Amino acid sequence: MFYFGVDYYPEHWPEERWSYDADLMAEAGFNIARLGEFAWSRFEPSEGNYDFGWLDRAIEILSDREIRIVLGTPTASAPPWVMAKSPEMFRMLPNGSRVPYGHRREYCPNNPTYIDLSKRIVSALAEHYAERLEITGWQIDNEFGDRCYCPICAAAFHAWLRDRYGTLPILNQVWGTAFWSHEYTDWNQIPTPLADANPHNPGLALDFKRFASDSYVAFQKMQIDILRGKCPGHLITHNFMGFKYPKLDYFDLARDLDFVSWDNYLRMQWTINDGVDSRAAALGHDTMRGLKGRNFWVMEQQSGGGGWECVSVSPRPGEIRLWTYQAIAHGADGIIYFRWRTNRFGAEQYWHGVLDHHGIPGHRYEEIKRIGKEIRNLGETLVGARIESDVALLLSYDSRFSFQVQQGNPDFDYGEHFQDVYSGFAQQNISVDVVQPLDDLDKYRLVIAPALHVVSDAVAENLKRFVQGCGVLVFSARCGVKDVANAVVDRQLPGVLSEMCGTVVEEYDSLPTGVENELEVDHGIPIEGAIAAKYWCDVLKTDQARVVARYTRNYYAGKPAITLNNFGDGKVVYLGTFGEEATYASIAPWLMSLAGVETGINTSRAIEVGVRIKNDKRFLFILNHGAKDEVIKLDKQYHDLLTDIKPITGDIHVAPLDVKILIEIA
Amino acid sequence: MFYFGVDYYPEHWPEERWSYDADLMAEAGFNIARLGEFAWSRFEPSEGNYDFGWLDRAIEILSDREIRIVLGTPTASAPPWVMAKSPEMFRMLPNGSRVPYGHRREYCPNNPTYIDLSKRIVSALAEHYAERLEITGWQIDNEFGDRCYCPICAAAFHAWLRDRYGTLPILNQVWGTAFWSHEYTDWNQIPTPLADANPHNPGLALDFKRFASDSYVAFQKMQIDILRGKCPGHLITHNFMGFKYPKLDYFDLARDLDFVSWDNYLRMQWTINDGVDSRAAALGHDTMRGLKGRNFWVMEQQSGGGGWECVSVSPRPGEIRLWTYQAIAHGADGIIYFRWRTNRFGAEQYWHGVLDHHGIPGHRYEEIKRIGKEIRNLGETLVGARIESDVALLLSYDSRFSFQVQQGNPDFDYGEHFQDVYSGFAQQNISVDVVQPLDDLDKYRLVIAPALHVVSDAVAENLKRFVQGCGVLVFSARCGVKDVANAVVDRQLPGVLSEMCGTVVEEYDSLPTGVENELEVDHGIPIEGAIAAKYWCDVLKTDQARVVARYTRNYYAGKPAITLNNFGDGKVVYLGTFGEEATYASIAPWLMSLAGVETGINTSRAIEVGVRIKNDKRFLFILNHGAKDEVIKLDKQYHDLLTDIKPITGDIHVAPLDVKILIEIA
Amino acid sequence: MFYFGVDYYPEHWPEERWSYDADLMAEAGFNIARLGEFAWSRFEPSEGNYDFGWLDRAIEILSDREIRIVLGTPTASAPPWVMAKSPEMFRMLPNGSRVPYGHRREYCPNNPTYIDLSKRIVSALAEHYAERLEITGWQIDNEFGDRCYCPICAAAFHAWLRDRYGTLPILNQVWGTAFWSHEYTDWNQIPTPLADANPHNPGLALDFKRFASDSYVAFQKMQIDILRGKCPGHLITHNFMGFKYPKLDYFDLARDLDFVSWDNYLRMQWTINDGVDSRAAALGHDTMRGLKGRNFWVMEQQSGGGGWECVSVSPRPGEIRLWTYQAIAHGADGIIYFRWRTNRFGAEQYWHGVLDHHGIPGHRYEEIKRIGKEIRNLGETLVGARIESDVALLLSYDSRFSFQVQQGNPDFDYGEHFQDVYSGFAQQNISVDVVQPLDDLDKYRLVIAPALHVVSDAVAENLKRFVQGCGVLVFSARCGVKDVANAVVDRQLPGVLSEMCGTVVEEYDSLPTGVENELEVDHGIPIEGAIAAKYWCDVLKTDQARVVARYTRNYYAGKPAITLNNFGDGKVVYLGTFGEEATYASIAPWLMSLAGVETGINTSRAIEVGVRIKNDKRFLFILNHGAKDEVIKLDKQYHDLLTDIKPITGDIHVAPLDVKILIEIA
Repeated sequence: MFYFGVDYYPEHWPEERWSYDADLMAEAGFNIARLGEFAWSRFEPSEGNYDFGWLDRAIEILSDREIRIVLGTPTASAPPWVMAKSPEMFRMLPNGSRVPYGHRREYCPNNPTYIDLSKRIVSALAEHYAERLEITGWQIDNEFGDRCYCPICAAAFHAWLRDRYGTLPILNQVWGTAFWSHEYTDWNQIPTPLADANPHNPGLALDFKRFASDSYVAFQKMQIDILRGKCPGHLITHNFMGFKYPKLDYFDLARDLDFVSWDNYLRMQWTINDGVDSRAAALGHDTMRGLKGRNFWVMEQQSGGGGWECVSVSPRPGEIRLWTYQAIAHGADGIIYFRWRTNRFGAEQYWHGVLDHHGIPGHRYEEIKRIGKEIRNLGETLVGARIESDVALLLSYDSRFSFQVQQGNPDFDYGEHFQDVYSGFAQQNISVDVVQPLDDLDKYRLVIAPALHVVSDAVAENLKRFVQGCGVLVFSARCGVKDVANAVVDRQLPGVLSEMCGTVVEEYDSLPTGVENELEVDHGIPIEGAIAAKYWCDVLKTDQARVVARYTRNYYAGKPAITLNNFGDGKVVYLGTFGEEATYASIAPWLMSLAGVETGINTSRAIEVGVRIKNDKRFLFILNHGAKDEVIKLDKQYHDLLTDIKPITGDIHVAPLDVKILIEIA
Repeated sequence: MFYFGVDYYPEHWPEERWSYDADLMAEAGFNIARLGEFAWSRFEPSEGNYDFGWLDRAIEILSDREIRIVLGTPTASAPPWVMAKSPEMFRMLPNGSRVPYGHRREYCPNNPTYIDLSKRIVSALAEHYAERLEITGWQIDNEFGDRCYCPICAAAFHAWLRDRYGTLPILNQVWGTAFWSHEYTDWNQIPTPLADANPHNPGLALDFKRFASDSYVAFQKMQIDILRGKCPGHLITHNFMGFKYPKLDYFDLARDLDFVSWDNYLRMQWTINDGVDSRAAALGHDTMRGLKGRNFWVMEQQSGGGGWECVSVSPRPGEIRLWTYQAIAHGADGIIYFRWRTNRFGAEQYWHGVLDHHGIPGHRYEEIKRIGKEIRNLGETLVGARIESDVALLLSYDSRFSFQVQQGNPDFDYGEHFQDVYSGFAQQNISVDVVQPLDDLDKYRLVIAPALHVVSDAVAENLKRFVQGCGVLVFSARCGVKDVANAVVDRQLPGVLSEMCGTVVEEYDSLPTGVENELEVDHGIPIEGAIAAKYWCDVLKTDQARVVARYTRNYYAGKPAITLNNFGDGKVVYLGTFGEEATYASIAPWLMSLAGVETGINTSRAIEVGVRIKNDKRFLFILNHGAKDEVIKLDKQYHDLLTDIKPITGDIHVAPLDVKILIEIA
Repeated sequence: MFYFGVDYYPEHWPEERWSYDADLMAEAGFNIARLGEFAWSRFEPSEGNYDFGWLDRAIEILSDREIRIVLGTPTASAPPWVMAKSPEMFRMLPNGSRVPYGHRREYCPNNPTYIDLSKRIVSALAEHYAERLEITGWQIDNEFGDRCYCPICAAAFHAWLRDRYGTLPILNQVWGTAFWSHEYTDWNQIPTPLADANPHNPGLALDFKRFASDSYVAFQKMQIDILRGKCPGHLITHNFMGFKYPKLDYFDLARDLDFVSWDNYLRMQWTINDGVDSRAAALGHDTMRGLKGRNFWVMEQQSGGGGWECVSVSPRPGEIRLWTYQAIAHGADGIIYFRWRTNRFGAEQYWHGVLDHHGIPGHRYEEIKRIGKEIRNLGETLVGARIESDVALLLSYDSRFSFQVQQGNPDFDYGEHFQDVYSGFAQQNISVDVVQPLDDLDKYRLVIAPALHVVSDAVAENLKRFVQGCGVLVFSARCGVKDVANAVVDRQLPGVLSEMCGTVVEEYDSLPTGVENELEVDHGIPIEGAIAAKYWCDVLKTDQARVVARYTRNYYAGKPAITLNNFGDGKVVYLGTFGEEATYASIAPWLMSLAGVETGINTSRAIEVGVRIKNDKRFLFILNHGAKDEVIKLDKQYHDLLTDIKPITGDIHVAPLDVKILIEIA
């Protein structure tokens, strides 16, 4: 079943309105609603006094219209009576002050009182709803994140470190605390890395980020254990924040869940011009699919302008539909719009939903209703259809956290670099997976490791195995710089990766803002166009690898910038600098040809092509993110699933913000 | 009597100098001086030990030269011994830290110890000076402002809320605390809105701003009660900070006073180029006049470059005189220059006065002396002369506070928008009043309500009454969005104003920075020039109102942006977007013609024309704020009061920074 | 002996590596190494348990290769067990929060526990190494600086004030605390100037900066006393941070030391383009030489890219050598490179040294080895050679601190202005000394006092004496504004300097950002080119002095901007505005001709010429800081000491980043 629904807060509206809202939802084609998120004060108005009657009534009204339910556990925002129990429950910011009451997510995830109260409300909810057939599953909390630096977290950090290192001499050794006399002689001396002492020891700083991530994984696990115990038939998810959110290791957070869902907002800008970066959403979808290697849901799909103090640009007519199909093209098996009706109260007064404040259906509702109709026809056909990729990008939260400790170059950002590489490949209209460095890579032909900064021996072995088994592996600059304790390796870069690269970094140059180098591609390498080198230049030295491109400026002009090495039965490319999306779009075809990966349909950048596969059938999604009519040349005969016209062949036109879903006619 | 004087701090200078200073003051034509402000440590060197002898001597020296006295109560800056009584006396900043000692205005206005000590010093002063005939009146404290977020204020806020809402269920209902589980079960749970929890519940945030404003109103009232009790013959004022200061409801603060005075600084820029915005000062004057619907004083008129750490641009020769007459043109019946001599010590070492640090009279003194001579001739003639306006702007502190909670669009500012609208009308050389939405509007023909965001039922009724009684009422975008609890209304915008507008907002578009729309005016509407639409576009839908202009860009091109509705015997114009000064200057003549308001003399923008009326005589002020000689065409015969030349007729020349004061010859 | 060496941290590397490193050092020509800095946790792993064995072994390995030792006292970064003793040991920031543990320099210099523990570790070190002949001397702590605002410092500040002023009435008088009722009645009421109360009383603010500087002078003196007592044969220094560091009075800090050394980093930029400001390094050297009027060492000479979170631009090939000879040209008798090998751990992981992380010698090592060879030949010849200057600049930390309290104009910076003046003279290729206003000035012909803001009577007398004895003295704007209590003087500016200037400031104009004036030079004054007037314009009035230049814009066009006065047998020039480097380069030749100072060799700006003198021999250093080959015209016959070629005459070519050291052939 394809889930198509809405995030709904009946507790914000008069009960008299509920039936009318449910009718409108049913008319829109919704078959699921998320309820209960943030409703702790209604579930437990005072300690130990529970009230689920209002939610039972809301569920009944929805069930009567065949709308199923995802229930949120309400721990993301605690009632005043909970937070009044102790000032220690409030999260400590990096500046050492506590988050005050008045927003949400005030809590410290390691606070025992908060954990205890969370257990009780989740248990009460789980017991009440365990047997209810209308419940599809649970969303735990809401958008986990943000690190706490409090003394309770410090103590938990000490336990985490003791667990990891066993003894202080070992910790002192791997962190290198001899530097600046930071040698710890008591676990309690170890601080959380407060901002006024920046920069901290990089080993401490990286471990703290891992610990903070693990704290939320544990807080989630506590809830999962309760729900699994009491409601074995229900599915469990959490709403992630896509590729962009950098503070949690999402692979770890996904591990204990049944499936991944995420919150997809594309029109959040207030200050930039009129564009939407559809590639960013695409990377969000592919990353979310990659967390468990499995299809996912969009738990919150933007359906109106966002905003807290300010109102963002609103989705343009057609965009909600376009984004919905983009999600499906990337593997979404559920789409839930946020939120039903724009709230009249509260901090998210301007976070617009399907309906405006006044509750009268307008063009956004009508657009969703149209999608609902299309989904009714298509949903069953598509649900469970897989994405198949020959190409994978390695996402390393260790590396990402390490760059948060030391950016290296002030204009470099791991996430932006990853996005640039991704977008360069996405322009080839091929599917790309996002996986972990320790995942099994055998099913890929081409693997790219953007700025894989922290590399364990196990990761190095995994990568070698992949290459030796005929894979093509691509590194960009700053790979292999750090060991797992965030120390710089004791050998020439890229350290433990050097052997497979057949090259070493003789020296490097961190470029000031506004300064670039340019590469010249060696004769015989089929890369077109000039290649800009940004942020960082590794000057390479190689006896063994083939030089692919060289710097053209500065005192290292003529020295190698890109090398290609044969290793085992595979190949390793080292890109000793950083580029932009266009750079990777230029290089991608060459890398794909090295790996024997076929290119997708050739289109302008405005067009995105996605493929889902089910029972050997390939569903082709053609999405026009641009403002102009686009013409796509088809090489075969297709059936247009949205218009039911067939056969379609030759040139097809796709209007701005429009979508085609085609299936090949045998 | 027209008051013409100076702010004087004899305690900063050797007593030997006082007589010489007083001679210079008399020579400048001063008849009043403000004394005693900030002198608490001299009045009460230690607790309960009073010393007014030095001030008595200073007053005597001034009185001997027929200079009268306004006394300041000294509570704006407490001596170290006062603030040493308790760390709780220090105001808490939005970040949760306390203002430390060392500047001024450190105090929490709700601190009972501070209130008690303030009562005692004010009582002692009042008793000492109650019978002194030289005293014209009192200025309470100095430039009230800045919110305190401390626990004592929190408790006072709880009392204020209990007073307003009675019960927590009602408060929870109107604030909508069901959102994010903020339902309060104990008054003490309600926080002050500290910055790290932003954004807060908009209801809480708006009420806190009202409460903080009321705290200063109460602190002032405490002093007024003492002074009224002990010195019934003295006038009482406070020195306001003009239109620009946005944190206090100045109508409330003015209510208990005998008259309003304010501090007028035009040359405070350090970073911008060479201009002075004379329209900003004009709006300041008109707002101050509007607070009590009565003439006012300038208690601090800039007489030198301002500055704390840095020195601002100094008034150019001629500007002090120009600004003095501008104030008078707008209804000032007293002008007091700040300050006599530039201080050699203290944080305001670079806040320059009439004399420089060295005390030798220079060109600024000479310029003021010239004004003094002119005022000696003119003052009695002008004092009490009224301003009469057919046009009023509605200033709503509720709306202003609400926009401080949620700006709506990152480039929108309530104060700047208000100023733009004001300046557009001021360019017509007509008088404009600034009044409250609940004021009696019957005497106006044209009323403009810029961004009247928060609208109570009573306000809506008042506006309807005005329109039905033949008025023309103009709204700009974002009117009627909020109820008094800062919730978005439960119906289509402009909510409770929709009926009189005859139009509703079908949807809205918050524009990103740098993006504009443009309006096309419908055939037959006499507005000249293109109209830019900035920040926000309300897309209007109307069956009833006439469409005045339409958008020309984006997906809502062709849809209505401005409508005109007949309602009762009046008319209502809804401007569904925001413009700049030039926009309102283009629209104003059309609106004035709708309302039957006559335009003023036609001049370039550099010229400002003001009219005061007394005993049926109209005094015409022509002020040249520009750098060029300007020629004004007179239609009648006039008497030039400054030069005493008559008759004047036809073209008159006004030199840069010069002034004409004309009276019609019958 | 010329000291040529490296900063070395053997405790960061395996002991097995030490001999290999020492061999490489010896091969590079090093004869000294700084050790022990930051090694407190290795010296005293727990309280009172000392371990110097590891350092003894490292010293032995170095001594075996004839490398001598400077030992650092380790108090700049305390081990966790030290800082765990009390939260009061942590320095308080201006925002009132404490520096947390995790970086370095966490300590309050007035904390008695910290002082006590420091005494003990320094005593233990001194006792252990007192008799060791390999030890040349000691560096105390590391880069003193940063003010502490804690209650213990407040108490120490009160004692300091009591010492300075004796009684509170006197303090209240000179600070002018009558302003805003700040009159103190108890010493304990006096706050440290926390940021949230800015601006503070300027008297308090200036005195606090003096006190904070004195606190470090006292902390250093405590260590000097111990070392002098136990190790009378050892030299004592501290590593200063050059001209740019503005928070300590470096003259005071240098007074108790045997010699001055400093840390010279030129390539620290991450955001600006590719340039290095060689004049800034030159001013650093000259200032450091001026602190004791004696040659100095570079204790940390940059040998790789710097960086904490980010990596800066790395020295370009040739720059390390160029900077080394620049230091020598300005009077360095010791050059020590920072650091030996780039650290794999800790906050300075990216602060690169002679070797990279991997420890394999690269081109930076080779460049230093080349210098080592050259120094072996030249060092003995040059060591002790003097710099002789006819021109001095007066550096006043009182004035610098005063501008930190009140910048005056938002674009004015004392340090930048000083640098601009310095660079204008340095372009004449002459030597310039940097001295204190109270120093004996008799040996100079020309003295420049840039923005000498705070002037005591003693300073005024010293300057008069200099001028009357035939000197030429030059002031720029904002001289003589303040008395020593930071009050504005009670007379026309430049106050106590007016008599010798023969001019007074009639008024002044602080220019907004982007606004300039321009000067026209009077007929007969040999200054070429237009002179821009920036930030500030003093409008001068003079009966006595000759007008040199006048303003050309604004209402004071035609009024004097620069005057020249005969006073005694000397001359005084008052520059009533600020310029840029080019301005002073234009004016310098005229000022030098007034004073009878000869100009140096005429070269392009890229070339720097330095002269050292020993036994009547003049060593000429010609340094090419530019990117182009430069041709210098020689007027005599020279011996090229680096190439040993002679005679050299006529045109010589100096390649980019190359150096010539020439000695005249008699």
